[in-house]
Amino acid sequence: MEDLKAKYDEYKAMNLSLNMTRGKPCKEQLILSNTMLDCLNSKSDFLSAEGYDVRNYGCLDGIKECKKLLADMVDAQPENVFIFGNSSLNVMYDCIAKSVTHGVLNNKPWSKQGKIKWICPVPGYDRHFAILEHFGIEMINVPLKEDGPDMDLVEKLVKDKHVKGIWCVPVYSNPSGISYSDEVVRRLANLKPKAPDFRIYWDNAYVVHHLYDDKQIKVLNILDECRKANNPDLVYEFVSTSKVTFPGGGVAALVTSINNLDSIKGLVKYQTIGPDKLNQLRHVMFFKDINGLKEQMRKHAEILRPKFEYIEKRFSEELVGLAKWTNPLGGYFVTVEVPGRAKQVVEKAKELGLSLVEVGSAFPYHKDPNNSVIRLAPTCMDQKELELATEIFILSVKLCSK
Amino acid sequence: MEDLKAKYDEYKAMNLSLNMTRGKPCKEQLILSNTMLDCLNSKSDFLSAEGYDVRNYGCLDGIKECKKLLADMVDAQPENVFIFGNSSLNVMYDCIAKSVTHGVLNNKPWSKQGKIKWICPVPGYDRHFAILEHFGIEMINVPLKEDGPDMDLVEKLVKDKHVKGIWCVPVYSNPSGISYSDEVVRRLANLKPKAPDFRIYWDNAYVVHHLYDDKQIKVLNILDECRKANNPDLVYEFVSTSKVTFPGGGVAALVTSINNLDSIKGLVKYQTIGPDKLNQLRHVMFFKDINGLKEQMRKHAEILRPKFEYIEKRFSEELVGLAKWTNPLGGYFVTVEVPGRAKQVVEKAKELGLSLVEVGSAFPYHKDPNNSVIRLAPTCMDQKELELATEIFILSVKLCSK
Repeated sequence: MEDLKAKYDEYKAMNLSLNMTRGKPCKEQLILSNTMLDCLNSKSDFLSAEGYDVRNYGCLDGIKECKKLLADMVDAQPENVFIFGNSSLNVMYDCIAKSVTHGVLNNKPWSKQGKIKWICPVPGYDRHFAILEHFGIEMINVPLKEDGPDMDLVEKLVKDKHVKGIWCVPVYSNPSGISYSDEVVRRLANLKPKAPDFRIYWDNAYVVHHLYDDKQIKVLNILDECRKANNPDLVYEFVSTSKVTFPGGGVAALVTSINNLDSIKGLVKYQTIGPDKLNQLRHVMFFKDINGLKEQMRKHAEILRPKFEYIEKRFSEELVGLAKWTNPLGGYFVTVEVPGRAKQVVEKAKELGLSLVEVGSAFPYHKDPNNSVIRLAPTCMDQKELELATEIFILSVKLCSK
Repeated sequence: MEDLKAKYDEYKAMNLSLNMTRGKPCKEQLILSNTMLDCLNSKSDFLSAEGYDVRNYGCLDGIKECKKLLADMVDAQPENVFIFGNSSLNVMYDCIAKSVTHGVLNNKPWSKQGKIKWICPVPGYDRHFAILEHFGIEMINVPLKEDGPDMDLVEKLVKDKHVKGIWCVPVYSNPSGISYSDEVVRRLANLKPKAPDFRIYWDNAYVVHHLYDDKQIKVLNILDECRKANNPDLVYEFVSTSKVTFPGGGVAALVTSINNLDSIKGLVKYQTIGPDKLNQLRHVMFFKDINGLKEQMRKHAEILRPKFEYIEKRFSEELVGLAKWTNPLGGYFVTVEVPGRAKQVVEKAKELGLSLVEVGSAFPYHKDPNNSVIRLAPTCMDQKELELATEIFILSVKLCSK
């Protein structure tokens, strides 16, 4: 006890300001892509493979070679890809906004279909839930298990015609780090929702974000599985280079069936003449192809691995019996469970100068039913800060475990 | 007669494919900004004036120095500016979409207010009208006169609480090239709309797009006039660098009151973590300040002036009595009026290999009541093509004037 108190005073006296709230790349990671900016320069010819001048208007859904690059990230075909701007969150938001105002494929707008509901595997990504709340869509919690959402529950819920979607982060899930099993993917692809305008929102944010070369999770290809299941239009897949190149200047894409794409093109054409094709070409020139991109991800992993490993090592040494935590093979987060004590732990860490994301963020309506889940975002700190933050977090858990 | 027929055959035999449909910059213009791409490179420090790393997440409404640059384009203050992505059309669309689903300031969403109507000065910009049609907003034509919209009519129409907006392209209007007089701007700023959520959509697309150094149109500052009129929240102003640097890779902004901005930030935060700040910094590094940008516009003018002057010269020589046309001091278009014969002229030009935008495009619902208005977009061709296209157009008018 005395020992903990002494440590508390010691950290308190350091007047720290450490931030573990958001999944941001650190400076070292950003530097990996600096030379991308040199690829496209005043000497370039600015022509896409199909002959578009990328500086000018036109080409609503992106240049072909960039479609190919992003398609390869998720093992899809370029013709299933629509390239947007720098934010996949924006693409997801727009898909939902357009479903509300104009409907999905040939169905009525959601705004004319009464109550709209959505399946939210928890814990999940706060910004996903925020979009739904913003549009007044009712969120239904479903447990996210070790291998994906509780499919018995999901299969039951989609029998309600008002249920129009489900959020999925299939690889290295935000925040728990789990990945979907083949069985879960197949059951999702084989869903028979009552609503013809139900869509799986497959946010493949971390598909190439492995921490280990020899322990890479590979989740079944959802577009393929949907096709096999005779459900070709069931899924919208989202992918981006935000955490591959620059969060502020990546490219994002929607990957889905030609049917869905044609319908979405018919809506997007009112919104824009086209996204930033210069940045698309810049990405292609930098990576050349998917192998270049994968090589880049290995460099990211080298920077991130020691951070995750330090947390795992120290938690194993200090927190057994006091908390449960994840040891992910990729992605951006470690999740800690401290049932009944999460708010207190976050409060304690804050006293010591470590900001953590608000408890409840991983749940719809910010309500963690068990006051249990804390999401740690270790990436944005340098190694020294990370180690300090880890010790403070451990101390905070211990202090709240008396 | 014989002479025209001979010319027709001559052009026909050339099997031309000329395109005057859209207001795209030509290649020479694009080259003016090529070196902008060298400004931001792997050696840059990537820090905004306020210390943001532009490569990373954050900074929802744009970096301060880019706000300053775009504010100076329209003589506004940086704190009234929200920087978005590469498309001002997208910003306008999003403003309307958000008004439909979430409402303007503290007012009810338009989707819950029954019929929504909009004032459309005609002739106008087809993509403006297309957005309204897409959202089922009823468009009311108002004549665009030499000095702006017919204000007697506008003042009458805003007494209807269902009327929620008006499109304005105040400087070198698309397509007619007219600019708004001080009196019109003041009457707009002093409107007393019945609807508290009525907004003037002030698309200042051509504010710096002068053709002449010594004949620059300067329209009154609408934000200032609205403030003076005690109507500070009445206007959304839109501006972009699409035709200053690259249509495919510019930056676009919304300029409006702090009240409106705060409300819009509260909506946009669900949609994105932030726009591409790298491109914002790139623009600032290239231009340094508004003087650099204005110098760039002089170079654009040097390229464009001969095109507009050729048209004016040849139309004056050939079309007096057969057509009316505009002789704009800036912007991207020449508008021709041939009452009762526009479709025939466009058809004839098409036979000769010259594509013109569909008649009706400058009107809501694609209906030109007098089959009269043809918009010519001379910028995207090189000078030789432009001269050929002009001759073909003149011939087409003559052939339809028998």
